[in-house]
Amino acid sequence: MQFAKGHGTGNDFVVLPDPEGQLDLTAELVAALCDRHFGIGADGVLRVVRSAAARRDADGHAAEWFMDYRNADGSIAEMCGNGIRVFAKFLIDEGFGVGPDIPIATRAGTRSVRAEPDGQFTVDMGPAVVVGDGAVQAGDRRLDGLAITVGNPHVACMIDQPVAEIDLSEPLVLSPAAMTSGANIEVIRQVGDREIEMRVHERGSGLTLSCGTGAVAAAVAAANAVGEWSSERGMPWIVHVPGGTLTVIPSIMASLLTGPADIVATGELSDSWLRRRSPVRLGTV
Amino acid sequence: MQFAKGHGTGNDFVVLPDPEGQLDLTAELVAALCDRHFGIGADGVLRVVRSAAARRDADGHAAEWFMDYRNADGSIAEMCGNGIRVFAKFLIDEGFGVGPDIPIATRAGTRSVRAEPDGQFTVDMGPAVVVGDGAVQAGDRRLDGLAITVGNPHVACMIDQPVAEIDLSEPLVLSPAAMTSGANIEVIRQVGDREIEMRVHERGSGLTLSCGTGAVAAAVAAANAVGEWSSERGMPWIVHVPGGTLTVIPSIMASLLTGPADIVATGELSDSWLRRRSPVRLGTV
Repeated sequence: MQFAKGHGTGNDFVVLPDPEGQLDLTAELVAALCDRHFGIGADGVLRVVRSAAARRDADGHAAEWFMDYRNADGSIAEMCGNGIRVFAKFLIDEGFGVGPDIPIATRAGTRSVRAEPDGQFTVDMGPAVVVGDGAVQAGDRRLDGLAITVGNPHVACMIDQPVAEIDLSEPLVLSPAAMTSGANIEVIRQVGDREIEMRVHERGSGLTLSCGTGAVAAAVAAANAVGEWSSERGMPWIVHVPGGTLTVIPSIMASLLTGPADIVATGELSDSWLRRRSPVRLGTV
Repeated sequence: MQFAKGHGTGNDFVVLPDPEGQLDLTAELVAALCDRHFGIGADGVLRVVRSAAARRDADGHAAEWFMDYRNADGSIAEMCGNGIRVFAKFLIDEGFGVGPDIPIATRAGTRSVRAEPDGQFTVDMGPAVVVGDGAVQAGDRRLDGLAITVGNPHVACMIDQPVAEIDLSEPLVLSPAAMTSGANIEVIRQVGDREIEMRVHERGSGLTLSCGTGAVAAAVAAANAVGEWSSERGMPWIVHVPGGTLTVIPSIMASLLTGPADIVATGELSDSWLRRRSPVRLGTV
């Protein structure tokens, strides 16, 4: 079984080319692949499958490839803004796709990805909507912010101090009520002209090096804070995440996320490992 | 550049075949390879180099291969009881060596490794010596134990409760004085006839899934506790570590460690990643 390992701003993936969709990708196999000590190690798996029914994007382009994205625990997820850039780079590297514009089918619909001249990739992240005010408890601090949906829920809080100083180990959403059962939480500081730094606590994953929808939510909150959030397409914001730098054009209609994608290695999984791979985690330390 | 990824009881390694020793393996490259998000991810690197001057083991066998072992931070280490089993499996898989007995040159001298009929590997871990009494502070508990050297220093503490219950997050060596600046700390419980479970806090690495010298120290402490530690070669002990199960024959002269070794995948590092690989860790979350 062939594989690649790649990452986008430190969000890393095992890529499994499976053009004809013959692979039985069980949750157990995903978890074994993503295990960082007993497997390859990754935040998720991107299975590369030829789209059975040619899907078409908003401009009528057919999406030849479907991104079957799985979380590290084997559960199914709809979209991943960092993963889809790695997916697009893999398609181009392997000759599966031709740039610069590549429509990619996902469970959240067909998304258009553009290979930029500088080697980065731009992804249509879909609509970003400000739901209203929000607040979070972070350590002994109560932070006010905005409730934002980017497909998934966020509470994005602008602060005046370095984002590294906030205790995001176990933050809680205080409001809005619809998000108190869980949301991604961002703390954001403006560090320049349309330039922010942010840290994110992802629902279900904790602190991560990067989060595509989180970067969009952060740019929305920052644009709003300087009176630039409107129904018209905005200006680009530079977003520094712990794993690197992204650029976001926030938009109510279709936000654009630009960032790097890197393929670290390609290879073949060992047959003997596949046959008798270790239980995912035999114990905890 | 070719590579493999493998593990022994969850202690995982990037293996780099470099028979002619042409690879400039800098500390920076090691750290980049071992980075779990921006690289392949591993606890260390095993470079496979043909031994320039054929070294001979105690029985006069020539060691054709030298294990150039590096820690994940790029620093040099002498030996690794889990790594050398993965190294031996790689030699046999690639046809670089023929079993069952393979002498392997290390910075700690030439070590004999045996491929067992059941697929496991047995390693000569060198002498284990009881230095005297020791004690550690683990959370709010003071635990008495034995100070043991297996090339490196250990304080191994027999306890009566499940080892998972002990707070090993930040244990301190209280005695002997020679080890208060740092030692590996094991907590051990006997769970059967010559069968123990143990957890280990490794100096410099923290809690780990497995530690070869720690398993030897644990077996020495357990044998001592039942009056079986002597200058003669003892009986085999089964040692359950968080990452699996090892077998140890503790000995003042040359302890033997038997355990599994698994190659997960083989492949090729991306040229573009090697050229412009990301800084090892751009930020911390």
